[in-house]
Amino acid sequence: MRSIARITSQLFKVPLTEVLTDAKHGAHTHFELVTATVVLSDGSRGTGYTYTGGKGGHAIKAMIDHDLAPAMIGMDGADVEGVHEFSEWHVHYVGRGGIASFAISAIDIALWDLRGKAAGQPLWQLAGGAANTCDAYCGGIDLAFPLEKLLDNVRGYLAKGAGGVKIKIGRPNLDEDIERIRAVRQLIGDGMALMVDANYAMSVDQAIAAAERIKPFNVLWFEEPTIPDDYRGYARIAAATGVPLAMGENLHTIHEFEHAFEQAGLSFIQPDASNCGGITGWLKVAERSRRYGIPVCSHGMQELHVSLLAAQANAGWLEIHSFPIDEYTMRPLVLADHRAVAPDEPGVGVNFDWAKLAPYLVDPSR
Amino acid sequence: MRSIARITSQLFKVPLTEVLTDAKHGAHTHFELVTATVVLSDGSRGTGYTYTGGKGGHAIKAMIDHDLAPAMIGMDGADVEGVHEFSEWHVHYVGRGGIASFAISAIDIALWDLRGKAAGQPLWQLAGGAANTCDAYCGGIDLAFPLEKLLDNVRGYLAKGAGGVKIKIGRPNLDEDIERIRAVRQLIGDGMALMVDANYAMSVDQAIAAAERIKPFNVLWFEEPTIPDDYRGYARIAAATGVPLAMGENLHTIHEFEHAFEQAGLSFIQPDASNCGGITGWLKVAERSRRYGIPVCSHGMQELHVSLLAAQANAGWLEIHSFPIDEYTMRPLVLADHRAVAPDEPGVGVNFDWAKLAPYLVDPSR
Ligand SMILES: [Mg+2]
Ligand SMILES: [Mg+2]
Repeated sequence: MRSIARITSQLFKVPLTEVLTDAKHGAHTHFELVTATVVLSDGSRGTGYTYTGGKGGHAIKAMIDHDLAPAMIGMDGADVEGVHEFSEWHVHYVGRGGIASFAISAIDIALWDLRGKAAGQPLWQLAGGAANTCDAYCGGIDLAFPLEKLLDNVRGYLAKGAGGVKIKIGRPNLDEDIERIRAVRQLIGDGMALMVDANYAMSVDQAIAAAERIKPFNVLWFEEPTIPDDYRGYARIAAATGVPLAMGENLHTIHEFEHAFEQAGLSFIQPDASNCGGITGWLKVAERSRRYGIPVCSHGMQELHVSLLAAQANAGWLEIHSFPIDEYTMRPLVLADHRAVAPDEPGVGVNFDWAKLAPYLVDPSR
Repeated sequence: MRSIARITSQLFKVPLTEVLTDAKHGAHTHFELVTATVVLSDGSRGTGYTYTGGKGGHAIKAMIDHDLAPAMIGMDGADVEGVHEFSEWHVHYVGRGGIASFAISAIDIALWDLRGKAAGQPLWQLAGGAANTCDAYCGGIDLAFPLEKLLDNVRGYLAKGAGGVKIKIGRPNLDEDIERIRAVRQLIGDGMALMVDANYAMSVDQAIAAAERIKPFNVLWFEEPTIPDDYRGYARIAAATGVPLAMGENLHTIHEFEHAFEQAGLSFIQPDASNCGGITGWLKVAERSRRYGIPVCSHGMQELHVSLLAAQANAGWLEIHSFPIDEYTMRPLVLADHRAVAPDEPGVGVNFDWAKLAPYLVDPSR
């Protein structure tokens, strides 16, 4: 047995090139990246990670260092699901979502990295193997951009080769949202996928009103119209308007996902492996998505999700998120023919460019 | 305006006098206490706190120090509800329960301490004022105690003046649970309140079977028979057996409480101000409990909850928890005529004995 010998973590605060704003989290100036490296008794090592919009990184690192890592030393590094199950219960009283989900995710991804390297298999094969490419769209955090800048930004997405475009909505005046949707639809043409994302800034009634006005623009989905906790509110919006709904980035436990599948009337589910229990947690959601008959999508960290998504028979759309974590790895996301291509390297296929990250390391003594 | 000038936190790991075991969290050897002291611009100060069963304390402190405190400097210290609302959204992406709920709670309680001192009013008056005493029972973490030790422990509760007794269940063999319940009921007599707590170790079907066998012993409630996430599972147990159910210590957001009120068929709700958003969060749950017509109870930190519970028109039972936080304050819980008595001092009435806590301070550099 190759047992867990050591787990080390690092916190980085990486600046964004410009301030990114959405309807509910306000302005983002940087993102946080927390990496976890697991070393087994034979010296082999795997690295996982999680990220935030700028808050919580210290707490995630503290939970890895003080609560999870010490308890995992000596465990079987190959028993990824067993370690995952242990983690959930180990911090259950302070967990069931929140910071614990992010901390558990980072370590879980590191163990999958080790699993893939030991098996000599890339993640897209280990995680299902359906394919090695998937549809991909660019998701902007562009609510504060004036219209011309918004359109310029979308032009950049098209030039990059994205297969679809998502913009933020939830401006103080719904007319402005509609004007922006109309302009973007006109720019990208009728054939391209267009999504909108309100970051739960609306009440159920507001969302119903917005959905009615969005309808003529043929959006593929309306993301997080209202707070993620209000599962039945989602169902009311879907039933009243027929507009397809999506969410998942704010659901952390498998129970929250089950409530959403059962009660929310979703058309797409968007788990994020950085905050729903890593790859083990993401695959549980993907399995449920097939049972409930809806496509599985993703939120954030495109460099990892490309492999998870491509591997699923019911793959939906990969989000190419505006936090460019992939640009701090040795293989930024690869697009070909408007589809994202998963890495073929054994392991999770995400190798950080530590030299590029070094300036953003948060001094551990602070 | 007296604005928030400084927030400092401290983490203590306080050993228990003996190992305490329940069905799902295993053995507890100590508890963690995280204190938060808020200093306003006029020099006035209030102290709040939260606690854990031994894990998560570093992460809670990290979130207070790095995410919450810096963002609150300059805010109006009297706008307790405004600061609370701000906090929830400020860390929402890494929050919605978990560590964030504990961190927010500690600061919220400190602000209520300041509010009470400024108003010259004790918490039981500020929080509703219905009364200054409430029913109180002792809750054991006694699952691993042999029967004789369990009974000795209960005798200690009676000697102390408790008005009721709660024991853990969820031993590998249900017959053992029943034998223990029978023995405790016999010891305390038919007139005294008896509760049982499975710490969600059972499936719904197991809980239904257990509830049927518990029935003859007239338990006041069956606490956390199954995982807190399975609201409808609770309703099935209640409907199938008629045994009154209680939970709440593992619910952190008002949305989780609303799901429980609406779906779980509970007879008692047990919010814990240390992990549901402090006093502001606890009072929201208490308000909902009246709307849903069930008594509000508490979990843990009896030295604070005595004031909150006494203040409510629909007060249920105060838990005197086996983590003796009150023994590290200048006024350990006062019992008179089998009821707990709230402090009359302005503020929350919880003043730590810092000298007694000092040996357990966790070195901040570690
Ligand atoms: Mg989104
Ligand atoms: Mg309990």
